[in-house]
Amino acid sequence: MKLKDIGEFGFIEKISRGCLIRPDNIVRGIGDDAAAFSSEPEQVTLVTTDLLVERVHFLRTATTGFNLGYKSLAVNLSDIAAMGGTPREAFVSIAIPDDCSIDFLEDLYNGIKELASEFNVNILGGDTTRSKVDLILNIVVTGCVRQEEMLLRNGAQPGDLIFSTGFLGDSRAGLHLIINDIAADSIELKSLLNSHILPRPFLHEGRFLARHSGVHAAIDVSDGLSSDIGHIAKESNVGIRLYSEKIPLSKNLIYFCAEFHFDPVEFALAGGEDYTLLCTLSPDKADDIARKYLDTFDNPLYLIGEITNTGKMELIDSAGRAKPFKPEGWDHFKSE
Amino acid sequence: MKLKDIGEFGFIEKISRGCLIRPDNIVRGIGDDAAAFSSEPEQVTLVTTDLLVERVHFLRTATTGFNLGYKSLAVNLSDIAAMGGTPREAFVSIAIPDDCSIDFLEDLYNGIKELASEFNVNILGGDTTRSKVDLILNIVVTGCVRQEEMLLRNGAQPGDLIFSTGFLGDSRAGLHLIINDIAADSIELKSLLNSHILPRPFLHEGRFLARHSGVHAAIDVSDGLSSDIGHIAKESNVGIRLYSEKIPLSKNLIYFCAEFHFDPVEFALAGGEDYTLLCTLSPDKADDIARKYLDTFDNPLYLIGEITNTGKMELIDSAGRAKPFKPEGWDHFKSE
Repeated sequence: MKLKDIGEFGFIEKISRGCLIRPDNIVRGIGDDAAAFSSEPEQVTLVTTDLLVERVHFLRTATTGFNLGYKSLAVNLSDIAAMGGTPREAFVSIAIPDDCSIDFLEDLYNGIKELASEFNVNILGGDTTRSKVDLILNIVVTGCVRQEEMLLRNGAQPGDLIFSTGFLGDSRAGLHLIINDIAADSIELKSLLNSHILPRPFLHEGRFLARHSGVHAAIDVSDGLSSDIGHIAKESNVGIRLYSEKIPLSKNLIYFCAEFHFDPVEFALAGGEDYTLLCTLSPDKADDIARKYLDTFDNPLYLIGEITNTGKMELIDSAGRAKPFKPEGWDHFKSE
Repeated sequence: MKLKDIGEFGFIEKISRGCLIRPDNIVRGIGDDAAAFSSEPEQVTLVTTDLLVERVHFLRTATTGFNLGYKSLAVNLSDIAAMGGTPREAFVSIAIPDDCSIDFLEDLYNGIKELASEFNVNILGGDTTRSKVDLILNIVVTGCVRQEEMLLRNGAQPGDLIFSTGFLGDSRAGLHLIINDIAADSIELKSLLNSHILPRPFLHEGRFLARHSGVHAAIDVSDGLSSDIGHIAKESNVGIRLYSEKIPLSKNLIYFCAEFHFDPVEFALAGGEDYTLLCTLSPDKADDIARKYLDTFDNPLYLIGEITNTGKMELIDSAGRAKPFKPEGWDHFKSE
């Protein structure tokens, strides 16, 4: 069955099933000029959006619809996580080329719905249209958070300790496998591939951090550690000191880097799309928060460095020498 | 200057100027993982989104950046108008091919900012990325409205009178000129072209209708009169009777149809993108509302038909004969 057989409204009817997961606050869902919902009282509304373009962000032939849909929502949920918020409503706009099958599209919406369902997010609307060549996907997610709990990029203070909620560099290694058409023929490589394809948003972890008063700043790792910690440095007008030996590297990444002769720390610094949260914690509260975090999630907060008042971005190597580092993550217009 | 010279973050810095038009409720604008704003108390939040794709919705060589930006926001504002709401925040996602100049893009954002400024809307965020071939634009607009004032598609009742806030068919005529490369060499044709290129959202008119208790349903004309009134019929489970002689036609459209041998009523029925509002009014309140409307806007509400309980969609011709009509507006997947 092709899209032109069922038409735009037939397609909308098909994908609309299973979109309303949490009906309590919804005044109007899919089917009017705009969606309408009531906000949580005494909370601010968060909005984030991500535009994904075929041949720039993904290769349609190298992904399943499910994985594409899942990740497209995940990256938006990760932005809400980085604000310390709770995601509420998602809006999916899609531009579909003629050669895209309904099966692929249904699979794509299933990927979105699977993750939406897990985090109690409604798919409340969007737009569907044609595209000449490339499949285009734009997802918007709204969320909410108490203003006093909100995690921003500009709150870091000299003396703060910098933590990551998870390993860094895995996603970049997974991307390397895809780009270079390397078969993921071991548990290690499969796991790296998975980190790239199905990233988990750290939403519960973001809420945990938001509830603790010693957390001064946060961001999610989308462009890469060096680039994203650079955003905190710039917005907070502070310096950064990272310790190369403390950067959390998975066994899988170390295996991969040994196999393919890469420096895992460089992968962790420049590699994007890990979607872990970086946060800066007041030094007098960091121990307590890190201990509670471990108790809650059975995973550590990884200490990777500290905020300085030097204005510099520096990496301390294993011999204790400081080297300056630059944001080396993804720039859509500069990179190829 | 090319995009790759200034990079993604340089570009974002450039276009971010002049985006915060109404700072009072904004907690965080451009520059964090998500935007954050406080909502109007006791109002529901509205969200609408539109995805525009080059070679499907516009030809880059046939438009200025300004006009493209202006219209892209206008169609979203029109959706808020059709809900009876007040627009608040806009989010602009854009995917840019390499051959698109910075001048064109700045002009595009100027078009968005011009209209945003007129209606007191902030541009509060979005996404910028590359595209392989086509320029892609996704705009999201949030708004607010008191729930009891909200205008929906599903409130029409048998006996209601159907009105339009403006002329129908002009935009389609303007599109005909563009597609067929016909020079707009008269005041009439220029005006039709303008209706297509720079549509005005009926926001003040939507708010007026929302404040009056006899207004039962509303929609904006994006797909075409027959198609959009069909949405009201379907959602309200009612029939529609339109009077061909009452459909408001501009002198410009009549001139155009005489010149190019078209039936203006057919243009009005099937032509989309007029962005007038269609509304259904309680018969006992319609006169009063229409009189106040005329006093307020110095333009009439045009009576075009009535809601019936027959379930049929019928058009009454000048001789009083009823003919069935079908939704004939735009279907992105069926039309070429």
